[in-house]
Amino acid sequence: MIVHKQVFELDRLDLFCGTTLRQVRVGYETYGTLSPSKDNAILICHHFSGTSHAAGRYNEIEEIPGYWDAVIGPGKPFDTHRYFVVSSDTLCNINVKDPRVVTTGPASINPQTGRPYGTSFPILTIKDFINAQHALASSLGIRRLHAVAGPSMGGFQALEWAIAYPEMVARVIVVISAGELHPWVIMMPGRVAETAIRLDPNWQNGEYYGKAGPLEGLALAFVVLTMIAKSQLWADRTVGRALADPGRSPFEGLDTRFLIETEIEKTAKERAKLVDANSYIYLAKAGALYRAGIGFGSLEEALERIRAKVLLIPCSSDLFLPPYQSQQLLGALRRAGVNASSFELESDGGHLAGILEIHKASRALRDFVESA
Amino acid sequence: MIVHKQVFELDRLDLFCGTTLRQVRVGYETYGTLSPSKDNAILICHHFSGTSHAAGRYNEIEEIPGYWDAVIGPGKPFDTHRYFVVSSDTLCNINVKDPRVVTTGPASINPQTGRPYGTSFPILTIKDFINAQHALASSLGIRRLHAVAGPSMGGFQALEWAIAYPEMVARVIVVISAGELHPWVIMMPGRVAETAIRLDPNWQNGEYYGKAGPLEGLALAFVVLTMIAKSQLWADRTVGRALADPGRSPFEGLDTRFLIETEIEKTAKERAKLVDANSYIYLAKAGALYRAGIGFGSLEEALERIRAKVLLIPCSSDLFLPPYQSQQLLGALRRAGVNASSFELESDGGHLAGILEIHKASRALRDFVESA
Repeated sequence: MIVHKQVFELDRLDLFCGTTLRQVRVGYETYGTLSPSKDNAILICHHFSGTSHAAGRYNEIEEIPGYWDAVIGPGKPFDTHRYFVVSSDTLCNINVKDPRVVTTGPASINPQTGRPYGTSFPILTIKDFINAQHALASSLGIRRLHAVAGPSMGGFQALEWAIAYPEMVARVIVVISAGELHPWVIMMPGRVAETAIRLDPNWQNGEYYGKAGPLEGLALAFVVLTMIAKSQLWADRTVGRALADPGRSPFEGLDTRFLIETEIEKTAKERAKLVDANSYIYLAKAGALYRAGIGFGSLEEALERIRAKVLLIPCSSDLFLPPYQSQQLLGALRRAGVNASSFELESDGGHLAGILEIHKASRALRDFVESA
Repeated sequence: MIVHKQVFELDRLDLFCGTTLRQVRVGYETYGTLSPSKDNAILICHHFSGTSHAAGRYNEIEEIPGYWDAVIGPGKPFDTHRYFVVSSDTLCNINVKDPRVVTTGPASINPQTGRPYGTSFPILTIKDFINAQHALASSLGIRRLHAVAGPSMGGFQALEWAIAYPEMVARVIVVISAGELHPWVIMMPGRVAETAIRLDPNWQNGEYYGKAGPLEGLALAFVVLTMIAKSQLWADRTVGRALADPGRSPFEGLDTRFLIETEIEKTAKERAKLVDANSYIYLAKAGALYRAGIGFGSLEEALERIRAKVLLIPCSSDLFLPPYQSQQLLGALRRAGVNASSFELESDGGHLAGILEIHKASRALRDFVESA
């Protein structure tokens, strides 16, 4: 499945914080064909470090397909023979140096000043993300979504869709996600990442555009993010306590390393190169501020707005959004009268299993998507 | 129970890495009275961020007693009416700015140069810690220990005692600990802390003595350490998602905070003031390198040396040294023919429950200490 990035432009977007954002641009991809009655659309929302590249490949030689390619495509649970799947970059996507990502955030040029917003960018919320997606869907003529689905921060968006636009959403799939960001996670990786970025001398109070930028602080942020997104069991199963250089005694000096250190740090440094530090901080803030249905009263009142059926898919070894939080959401949804069910991913892969092992939920996804 | 710090001095200590350390000094405290036959001594080993202050108060007005005061004292499980309890500062104790801590580590003066060792200090291991304790015990005339006990890194030491000096140890109590440091924990908080310290411009490659030192990097290290030593359930039960300043809208600006952020950071900053950054890095390395009985062959061969009875006390919500790791050690000990048992602390307090909620194990501790 060869896909290509498209760009959606919006003159203005009123944000939840009260500010109006001008000249909004977000990238998006579509898989499958929109039916003449435009009633077969499924929206996929991405996770914190993700992009709109949910499925397929940009060309024949691209090695790794989109992150949920295992479940999106011809004959797959999100069957592109039947459904028109849309996936968009969020506002404030962190991967601004990825040439295929199109987003509006702190690294964008403020039309009023002609310079990057930096830390003058307004505070964003998950609600703003879905309002941008709502404008995109409307521009495509879509008035009702067969389903909205996403992992982690994508799950926040999926749930928010059902609260903000209850008449537009028939099914919601919330993967490795919850009704609010856990306070432990607000602190770590969230606040820890921000502190690491600010500690980097290249941070320069966020005025680093055109300069090196806080790459080391960002790399540390990714190390912490990765460790929490994986799990202790994952570490046991893969690198364990192997040394990076088995030929050297670890008692020799401070600079010897375990393989887990060199492997995680190498990946984190590569990731950091694609990422804008201010965008990372703003997106972490949007995550921290997330509670389902802010602006619609209490959590209970917000959930009572939902008309969609809801499927929750937690992972048993998740440190990020522990399964008990998903259980709490399930209970709250049912108390609010929502038709909600849950399917637990059995995996030692931690939070990331919701992305890397989504195929384990294929049957549950297919049944839910095809259900009446 | 009023206690006071004493100092043990040793001319030389041969380290596992091959270097000889000169003019070694460590602080220690004792509670109770050594019997004429010197057969009633119990050694308590402290955790990573701890000191020899395991019980009692230094004076009448000291608010908080030693960390295991709940179980050490007259009539308590480690009954000072019956036992002579000894607790020493480890080599490379991190709290070098605490006036009551006496230790030898990177912040100490190298007698050969007259300047602090800094990063020229040799690599330390848990085995070196217990060899210093062994010299201390010998200096007190103690030839056999009724028990050795400790939480976390203190548990590493307790187990190592039974392997290195099998004829000297009758009972071992390993609290919230394991047979090796988990690879996930090598990376975080271990390596993450080191990276945070090195990122601080005041780090100066470890040559910060007499200057400000990397206080911000250290504070970040303590934030990460604290989050892993606590638990998600702890966060739910205490601060939750409360705002630091409920009178201010969190959608107003980047600088608004949740209570969990301000509380954890305040404590971390206070802790950092007492701590030497190089010592933190060296002690984390000693932790990372820990595997029970290095130098005595495989783990199996090392455990077969043990003659002591062993009691393991894991905590159900521990993220740091998850209960399954303690279960693995229990299995390995039994396969090695050791009389080993386990008592699980039921708590949502995470790793720190092994310190703050040790009273929950009082009965198990008392039975074990008094057992034949």
